[in-house]
Amino acid sequence: MKITEGKSVSCVRGIQAAGCAVGLKKSGKKDMGLIYSEVPAVCAAVFTTNVVKAAPVLLDMERVKNPVTRALVINSGNANACTGEQGMADARATADHVAKRLGIAPEEVMVFSTGVIGQPMEMDKILAGVDICADALASGGDDVHRAIMTTDTKEKCFFAETEISGIPVSICGIAKGSGMIHPNMGTMLSYVITDAAVTKEVLQKVQEEVTHTTFNMVSVDGDTSTNDTAVLMANGCAGNPVIDSAEGEAYEAFLAAVHEISEFLAKAIAADGEGASRMIEVDLKGADTEETARLCARSVVSSSLVKAAVHGADANWGRVLCAMGYSGAAFDQGTVDVAFSSDEGHIDVFLQGVPVNFDEDRALKILSRDVIHIEIDMHQGDVSAKAWGCDLTKEYVAINGDYRS
Amino acid sequence: MKITEGKSVSCVRGIQAAGCAVGLKKSGKKDMGLIYSEVPAVCAAVFTTNVVKAAPVLLDMERVKNPVTRALVINSGNANACTGEQGMADARATADHVAKRLGIAPEEVMVFSTGVIGQPMEMDKILAGVDICADALASGGDDVHRAIMTTDTKEKCFFAETEISGIPVSICGIAKGSGMIHPNMGTMLSYVITDAAVTKEVLQKVQEEVTHTTFNMVSVDGDTSTNDTAVLMANGCAGNPVIDSAEGEAYEAFLAAVHEISEFLAKAIAADGEGASRMIEVDLKGADTEETARLCARSVVSSSLVKAAVHGADANWGRVLCAMGYSGAAFDQGTVDVAFSSDEGHIDVFLQGVPVNFDEDRALKILSRDVIHIEIDMHQGDVSAKAWGCDLTKEYVAINGDYRS
Repeated sequence: MKITEGKSVSCVRGIQAAGCAVGLKKSGKKDMGLIYSEVPAVCAAVFTTNVVKAAPVLLDMERVKNPVTRALVINSGNANACTGEQGMADARATADHVAKRLGIAPEEVMVFSTGVIGQPMEMDKILAGVDICADALASGGDDVHRAIMTTDTKEKCFFAETEISGIPVSICGIAKGSGMIHPNMGTMLSYVITDAAVTKEVLQKVQEEVTHTTFNMVSVDGDTSTNDTAVLMANGCAGNPVIDSAEGEAYEAFLAAVHEISEFLAKAIAADGEGASRMIEVDLKGADTEETARLCARSVVSSSLVKAAVHGADANWGRVLCAMGYSGAAFDQGTVDVAFSSDEGHIDVFLQGVPVNFDEDRALKILSRDVIHIEIDMHQGDVSAKAWGCDLTKEYVAINGDYRS
Repeated sequence: MKITEGKSVSCVRGIQAAGCAVGLKKSGKKDMGLIYSEVPAVCAAVFTTNVVKAAPVLLDMERVKNPVTRALVINSGNANACTGEQGMADARATADHVAKRLGIAPEEVMVFSTGVIGQPMEMDKILAGVDICADALASGGDDVHRAIMTTDTKEKCFFAETEISGIPVSICGIAKGSGMIHPNMGTMLSYVITDAAVTKEVLQKVQEEVTHTTFNMVSVDGDTSTNDTAVLMANGCAGNPVIDSAEGEAYEAFLAAVHEISEFLAKAIAADGEGASRMIEVDLKGADTEETARLCARSVVSSSLVKAAVHGADANWGRVLCAMGYSGAAFDQGTVDVAFSSDEGHIDVFLQGVPVNFDEDRALKILSRDVIHIEIDMHQGDVSAKAWGCDLTKEYVAINGDYRS
């Protein structure tokens, strides 16, 4: 499957999209987006596990149970979170207005919000934004992926075509990330939109499975936001035989396509973490259980000390081993290998539980690249896991600590 | 109980101590220390929960079960960790040499090590250090608290006298902290030494209870070291009636004394975290269970975003609430209050689940101090917890990322 960056969500059959600026962002940049399916579509979603959930998340957790979803409306600049009962009323009012403008039921609209938390929503701007987006849908402004950006420095929009049961199917993923939460910004949001024909039950299964190994394995700073949401929408316009079972060739092809787009988005979010100068990928194999694999990979990629070491281009196996040790997983350090690699090459630094005398200059060269792989082989089973993150830089502290000045 | 900073461990009756420099630290600073009880003493300890444990930790976990402990030998500069079988042989050899020099059994010696991990121990220097310290014991060099420092910028040594059953009892605590682990340094080590008469069983109970609410509630960077150890030693030289039960006035007085010294050490470790410019104390009350109280307090003090906000003197209740939300504790955000305070005053920023319109200038003034309290009242029960940490600064990143340059 070839993934390209030139096309956006409205290139998916039966999907219209638009973005606009209504002044929620002080910069004047686009801050509202609308995605609309011309035909009834099904939707699946995974939401933040944070106990403190934003009003739109609470609304969407109910609405995603409905058989049909046709519109996704998103604002950036001001997050509807920690806003009490008024916040829920605002989320509903936004959906109601979208429904009225598009001639669909309010229950078919899902609402998303990212930005400063705890501030009342400027509903006059939000409702005006709905109008502008609704008017622009047919002409296809198609820059929802820009309208959802906050501290993101790069657009995250990937498009691909694949074949399912011999029929061409389109899939497009857009996301925003950066810090996992930020007082002036937000949260991780992702939308994967496809014209494949899939039942709602299968779609939810695919989304849970994919999120587990992609978005849930990204850590920028360990903080889980109140608004994180990953959505998967399918409208059936490709005309493939409906995928209604979680097995068989068509299911596997669909799962692989959603997984590939989602992994691209996950990596793009990690690489664009606040203040990041390098992306880190932990490739862990040889674990005895999936839980051990995931706990260790996530713990390594989340460790402030590992992140700072990668920033300093230091092949610091001690911090890697230490982070595995406090991950909560049980394992024997005596069989563990650790290596670092990048497009400059590969270097073993710890083999079978014992440090290797390695060439520091070569390690420095390998670790001075943009994408650093931490390769771990536990030699205790055949389970693998990947996790993505970024280095810890002074710019991260500046973005998150000095934003007043 | 009045706590002073002028006295050290050898001011405790029956305790001798010495420190020296043997060249394990390139700086030439003191890097070996020895604490010796003139009479048989009992010892209790709590060790790191990291699965990857250093050789001395494994040795001490066995030795602490012995009825008598008389000597504690500590080196800094080069940690005996991830050193395989040789590491264990080195730890035993160090203890053997101490035992020979002091005329005690090897089983009565415990060994501690902090510094660069994965490098072979320079045993000639270690054994020479044991000789120098043993020779100096009687004259009382008494600077073990200096010999155990690594990236610490301040000495951590607190002394107090109290009365138990009408008898004067001395207690002295020393510690090193800084980063929870560091490739060139180490770990958290603490030693509380007292002349109280206590049974080994009661001592272990006191140490576990105290560690739970002091050292285990400190977070500098969320990384748990391979070598962390907190020791409590009591030699009975005060002559109080032996405390042999975990109840009654004498027990409570002893527990309170150990708790107070340990809390001083815990706070000193937090305040001296790598790169820290402010100490953070989370004062949480009104939780429904102890687990909720501890999870929430620790999660708030460990959050990179909270730490960065405190660095920026920002009264960011959103990050506080968010960190509570992903702590793993279940609670209702609707009754939560959040306030910030310092020696400049107190300001409410979130009351009963709703943001307060507060005076930003006043908040900035309160948060621009050296010690910042984050006060949380959950109004859901009567359980409290405290946790300590420090702000996240560019200096932390520099210490942990740029140490090569």
